[in-house]
Amino acid sequence: MTSPFLTRLEQARKEKRSYLCVGLDPALPRQRTSQTMGRGYLDGADENEARLRFCLDILDMTKDYACAFKPNQQYLVGWTKKEHQTLTAAIQETGAVSILDYKLGEIADSAESALFHIRECGYNALTFNPLLGNLETVVKQARAREPWLGLLVLTLTSNPEAARFQKDATVSGKPLFMAIAEDIKRFDAEGAVVGATSHVSREEIRRIREAIGAERIVFIPGIGTQKGELQAVGTAGQNVLVNVSRDISYSEDPRRKAERYCSRIRSIIQGPARLLLS
Amino acid sequence: MTSPFLTRLEQARKEKRSYLCVGLDPALPRQRTSQTMGRGYLDGADENEARLRFCLDILDMTKDYACAFKPNQQYLVGWTKKEHQTLTAAIQETGAVSILDYKLGEIADSAESALFHIRECGYNALTFNPLLGNLETVVKQARAREPWLGLLVLTLTSNPEAARFQKDATVSGKPLFMAIAEDIKRFDAEGAVVGATSHVSREEIRRIREAIGAERIVFIPGIGTQKGELQAVGTAGQNVLVNVSRDISYSEDPRRKAERYCSRIRSIIQGPARLLLS
Repeated sequence: MTSPFLTRLEQARKEKRSYLCVGLDPALPRQRTSQTMGRGYLDGADENEARLRFCLDILDMTKDYACAFKPNQQYLVGWTKKEHQTLTAAIQETGAVSILDYKLGEIADSAESALFHIRECGYNALTFNPLLGNLETVVKQARAREPWLGLLVLTLTSNPEAARFQKDATVSGKPLFMAIAEDIKRFDAEGAVVGATSHVSREEIRRIREAIGAERIVFIPGIGTQKGELQAVGTAGQNVLVNVSRDISYSEDPRRKAERYCSRIRSIIQGPARLLLS
Repeated sequence: MTSPFLTRLEQARKEKRSYLCVGLDPALPRQRTSQTMGRGYLDGADENEARLRFCLDILDMTKDYACAFKPNQQYLVGWTKKEHQTLTAAIQETGAVSILDYKLGEIADSAESALFHIRECGYNALTFNPLLGNLETVVKQARAREPWLGLLVLTLTSNPEAARFQKDATVSGKPLFMAIAEDIKRFDAEGAVVGATSHVSREEIRRIREAIGAERIVFIPGIGTQKGELQAVGTAGQNVLVNVSRDISYSEDPRRKAERYCSRIRSIIQGPARLLLS
């Protein structure tokens, strides 16, 4: 069987000629001092509605350049299913896929319950935290949903403190992130979430790609804007999805930013020769 | 400085003479075939209101025997802040503490945003997933909240698949769970979440207690009902909190079940001699 998420993502990437995922992190004006939505979003709207409007605006401005959108659970606390459903329906309308950045790390009936509700919210996939070791079970639970939910598994994150538990820690003689990458293939999850900045090397990205196989997604969250960091993305092959959140949604001109990211990422992933043909 | 969460928990434990935490996992009738709330909760109520009513009923029936309540995020997807706030205020009213079982595993601004919203929901503490290695940062972020949020860190979970990443994986020559336990003390989080069933041995519980120090909580989720499993709880010392979820909330008589768990757990933790004095 083929993952409905991977099928739809493949269609969206072809249609948009884009590997770009736009992250949706709607911060309220009172939440912090910079990188928040404008106060106008709260005119005649409660905070749920304001966050939804902000997401729909970013969606509308960037939809031509994004094959995926990644709403971030940590910014959506307090949303009813209605807000989630409105957003996921609007994402679907653009032809893109929706990935809830949820970092599910749960067992048994609790994991089952999360998947029940996330499916009802209308998402195509979610992110997963593998510390509890139960990826196999959760993949099965996710596939019992109709249509099944895709799982993108945290494999190697780029925050500097991550190296200790994800790289220095070893299991059966290999670093934890490689054991996780092998699990992704073994249990047939949809892909690996892999940082492409900071301590994560191109060699590590290459090893993860080799372990998960060409048919799965390497999802690269939060890349920086430096050219070197974008170049590292190329190491993961062509079956990738590159996320940009705040550098698009809190910029002066999200549309233009998305367009630029879309073409820069495409040129890096496809290479100059392919670019001429595309 | 003293953790407001630990101070309040200590007060609640003394007042209720209880080490019991009651887990709140409100499953909708259409969500699964057994262990759901009764259909009556949906009379004249939407699903958010029904889930809230169920939680408030369990709270009311068990409040004399529980020093803490643990709403489970995976059952609360779709709740607005208002539902969360109503529940946490009601928990506070009983003199107990509220712990959101959220398993936060996030970095930087996303972790910050989650804490912002969870604090607004009124919780005293939340559970944390340490895979990303950034406990130190998140402890600081949680303490910047007023009053600060307590963090209970997943250390060793009892699901059988957990052994591979949490026990077999080693970092600096020790199992990952011991590195996590040492981090809890080093970065001064409020406690460790430790399973007390299945593959988790009494010796492992003892080692975790030694590493985190006597002043922090060992939070034991989801104990079984067998006597042997309850006995393992005693290994963690007296600064513990023992969670029971479905075996109370989906029983015929939650009040009576809570009363029994409360006294059985107390007798195990305090021992027969202390029981005579209490």
